[in-house]
Amino acid sequence: MQKIKVKIPASPAASYTIAIGSNFLHTVLAQIKKLFPEKQLFLITDGNVAKTKNLKALLGKENIPKFVITPAGEKSKNIKTVIKIIETMEKQAFGRDTAVIALGGGTVGDMAGFVAAIYKRGVDVVQIPTTTVAQADSAIGGKTGVDSLISKNAFGSFKNPSAVFIDVSTLKTLNEKQFNAGLVESIKHALIADEKYFDFLKKNLNDILARKSKPLEYIAMKNCKIKASVIEEDPFEKNKRRSLNYGHTIGHAVESASNYKFLHGQSVAIGIIAANIIEQKLGLGGKERLEELKDIFEKLKINLEIPKSITKKQILDIISRDKKAVQKWPRFVLLEKTGKVLYRDGQYAHKVERNIVEETIDILINQ
Amino acid sequence: MQKIKVKIPASPAASYTIAIGSNFLHTVLAQIKKLFPEKQLFLITDGNVAKTKNLKALLGKENIPKFVITPAGEKSKNIKTVIKIIETMEKQAFGRDTAVIALGGGTVGDMAGFVAAIYKRGVDVVQIPTTTVAQADSAIGGKTGVDSLISKNAFGSFKNPSAVFIDVSTLKTLNEKQFNAGLVESIKHALIADEKYFDFLKKNLNDILARKSKPLEYIAMKNCKIKASVIEEDPFEKNKRRSLNYGHTIGHAVESASNYKFLHGQSVAIGIIAANIIEQKLGLGGKERLEELKDIFEKLKINLEIPKSITKKQILDIISRDKKAVQKWPRFVLLEKTGKVLYRDGQYAHKVERNIVEETIDILINQ
Repeated sequence: MQKIKVKIPASPAASYTIAIGSNFLHTVLAQIKKLFPEKQLFLITDGNVAKTKNLKALLGKENIPKFVITPAGEKSKNIKTVIKIIETMEKQAFGRDTAVIALGGGTVGDMAGFVAAIYKRGVDVVQIPTTTVAQADSAIGGKTGVDSLISKNAFGSFKNPSAVFIDVSTLKTLNEKQFNAGLVESIKHALIADEKYFDFLKKNLNDILARKSKPLEYIAMKNCKIKASVIEEDPFEKNKRRSLNYGHTIGHAVESASNYKFLHGQSVAIGIIAANIIEQKLGLGGKERLEELKDIFEKLKINLEIPKSITKKQILDIISRDKKAVQKWPRFVLLEKTGKVLYRDGQYAHKVERNIVEETIDILINQ
Repeated sequence: MQKIKVKIPASPAASYTIAIGSNFLHTVLAQIKKLFPEKQLFLITDGNVAKTKNLKALLGKENIPKFVITPAGEKSKNIKTVIKIIETMEKQAFGRDTAVIALGGGTVGDMAGFVAAIYKRGVDVVQIPTTTVAQADSAIGGKTGVDSLISKNAFGSFKNPSAVFIDVSTLKTLNEKQFNAGLVESIKHALIADEKYFDFLKKNLNDILARKSKPLEYIAMKNCKIKASVIEEDPFEKNKRRSLNYGHTIGHAVESASNYKFLHGQSVAIGIIAANIIEQKLGLGGKERLEELKDIFEKLKINLEIPKSITKKQILDIISRDKKAVQKWPRFVLLEKTGKVLYRDGQYAHKVERNIVEETIDILINQ
């Protein structure tokens, strides 16, 4: 037997820019054209955004080929919609010289990122997030995922955007429930990385909820910086990037068990409470933080109650199929203290005994 | 407006190993387990391979979860089959700690590579090609593509295998037509890169057709070395990798116009003849080589005739939509001499005037 080694060359470092501000969406299309003068532009948005002034602000008097995802939201974030988008692009003879523009929330951003990752082996994508959750999280870092008929994010890839534009004024189009739930990702960032940022969020919550530009720009900037510093170190989620999944293991399970009736942020809030209970059970402390968190979530009017229709067995089943499960049992990101994730034995995500997880779910269900 | 730069770190150089030999398929599963001790294995193969002794040789007395693509062949190489495979993996709770094993020809390898690229944002893939075309070409280099309902390879990605095992004994299961057509990719490698290898193929054609292990191992090794040296220099097909498309521009068009009744190798043989006619028309020579090629293709019993049902207009239409077309006209890879592609003005693929291409198609159709 003979062996031949095939070298995969190193790929050089690169970068992309996130522009953050307010009331500048009407200048973005011109900026994209300047950045990608030779690309054909294809817009992906959804039925909700298409009704808002955000779409008008982006396009002005111009029109570019587009796909409007309907119905808007998680229910359309699946491989079937991806196929429809790609067929639309094919019919209009889009080639590899395409830049896909994503205008909308997490669903739009994930779908557009994944489409760009696999269309003719890869084209550019520009992210213009218009929700609190997308601006804080999904538009940055290149993780894309779309659902199968069976589970969440069964399909996906890592696809870095070529540029990101965050205009916090676009958030004015959100209803209260969406706006507030999306702030949970900001709270998560503060919890895992920056105690002072956590204090800022507590102190400025009223101004944030009033959607004042200054604090919104500040939290957009903090979120991007925290997320960027994590993913720069670990772009493919081998270890440190997993800290961004704080609250997401049980959070995703609850979201899935609710059949996506729970918003992502609401589910992650429950997952953060779950993580805190586990932390306390493992002797990591966090009792005081639990009170602070419950107080914040109350101000955000987030319902932490799990309805009777969701069972412990369901949640356990779902977490055993977690993408990052090892031998069908997930790893948990935990806090050592506010602003610092537990890093032990070289790992950012930890094995937690089954009985502790079961007890935690019991508490959540019966609270 | 504030700007934040997100760094995308360089990814380090890596490598994978191609093992080449004969009669060692029964040892491969143990080798894979040794290479990936913590991975869960999932096998993708097709209805044809499942009937051969190759599947038995790989598995021995073991059984691992698998998906058998039916019907075998190009007709199943589409996004619908990808969805079925991924749903099968989900139902069995495969996580990111999965290594997909591809046992089969080009369709199996492409499907498995693409599934591995997008399943839960990427898992490992091990390629075990069992056809002449897959061993020479598709199992190496990481290009994957699957069809939409509208066009070929509309979905795809670059996904390097983690390991490749080429056991030339597996080729004994192929029928004569398949075996012979797959050799055209070897001839292409010789033409673009190595005159001595071309001489070897001419001289040893009888032993190759008798499927003797020694010459088959030699050509597997040569093919891998030639392809590896090209893709190491240009993994994402920006320039030099395009030389691997020699004979493929008109070849693909004929294959498509035949509704995939022509085998890929047969189509590429016609494309190679077309390229040679263009070379002669452009004063690059190659008259003697044309005779050698016709002689080889005759020994391979490859029918170079284009049926009356395929028209010049059809071929011209298809090449104008080539993925790498510039202003709806393809670029052609051409030979300067046997073993050397024409490299001019920094390019490996060249503009050829429309009348020359039309005359060439006329000759092909009326030969």
